[in-house]
Amino acid sequence: MRMLEDRIREQGLILSDTVLKVDSFLNHQVDTALALEIGKELAGRFADKPITKVLTIEASGIQFAMAAGIALNVPFVYAKKKKAITQSEQAYSASVHSFTKQETYQVTVSKSYLGPGDKVLIVDDFLATGAALVGLVQIVNESGAELVGVSCVIEKGFQEGRGLLEQMNVSVQSLATITRMAPGEIEFAEPVKELVEETV
Amino acid sequence: MRMLEDRIREQGLILSDTVLKVDSFLNHQVDTALALEIGKELAGRFADKPITKVLTIEASGIQFAMAAGIALNVPFVYAKKKKAITQSEQAYSASVHSFTKQETYQVTVSKSYLGPGDKVLIVDDFLATGAALVGLVQIVNESGAELVGVSCVIEKGFQEGRGLLEQMNVSVQSLATITRMAPGEIEFAEPVKELVEETV
Repeated sequence: MRMLEDRIREQGLILSDTVLKVDSFLNHQVDTALALEIGKELAGRFADKPITKVLTIEASGIQFAMAAGIALNVPFVYAKKKKAITQSEQAYSASVHSFTKQETYQVTVSKSYLGPGDKVLIVDDFLATGAALVGLVQIVNESGAELVGVSCVIEKGFQEGRGLLEQMNVSVQSLATITRMAPGEIEFAEPVKELVEETV
Repeated sequence: MRMLEDRIREQGLILSDTVLKVDSFLNHQVDTALALEIGKELAGRFADKPITKVLTIEASGIQFAMAAGIALNVPFVYAKKKKAITQSEQAYSASVHSFTKQETYQVTVSKSYLGPGDKVLIVDDFLATGAALVGLVQIVNESGAELVGVSCVIEKGFQEGRGLLEQMNVSVQSLATITRMAPGEIEFAEPVKELVEETV
């Protein structure tokens, strides 16, 4: 998504070869007009599939789930993060290890809001190690809902997240894929051209 | 806001005379169409004032700040909650005591995203004890920005939040004000009629 890559180049802060701060326009201060465009694109990448619900994780996924929900005219659900490892019969949960914070937390979604019959698009701001997204995929699978795919705003293409999700047979889309970065430098992957299957 | 009061009556879960759960449509699963209408109304209550930025607190304020930001065509900022009481020169912060969780946390906003020249509308999902909102007001005051007012989705009118904010000379609006509740019963305040000042 060209508009997004341009903003990252202009306003993103590259602190190291793995840390990119985009909190001036995406995840602390949020440019609402840009977030709405991002929502359209997150949803548009799966436009051929019926989607009944968007799923994300608090906090920084919420604005993009909202925007995708607006584009699709469906509700969204945000999973909650909890330190306590109390299992609840009323909730689906998955353990997620945060490499940034070096701690393990539980991701939970009430069983009332996800189940067979739902066709779910998972969205999030970043795809990097994939830890949180793998947890959300496990929750969707446990619920019996159908997972349509995972659509992310920014992917760190040099980390293992995509590989982990694809091993789980999940279809993954990202609006801006960073192939390499360092303070003062950033490279994005060429936009992927859809390949038409030539064999039937 | 009649549409909101009706949804609370139909889908809200009143667990006690102080605890109302609205997580089927407002703050776990979110009805995006309703959230957009709520955003228009949150902003509309201060339609006579110029607003340059919406401020809220993660996580459950984000969808309403986004919706108000869309209605006003301005960016929004969400304050972050941190356990650590590390002061930072780069951030405004305030201590907030959560009565629900019986813990004190820090609310922080980067100094880059709030300052003199900003005209700020604070929004949140609930106004009850007012603890988090008082923290946000302190941050706005510290930043030198102008506080236009506080606009909340649901107010527990029998708790002290409004009083605390009004003591700080803050203009407060809520879209649905609960005057009394108990399992199976809920009463809302009559919509406030704007009083025209008769003395000059």
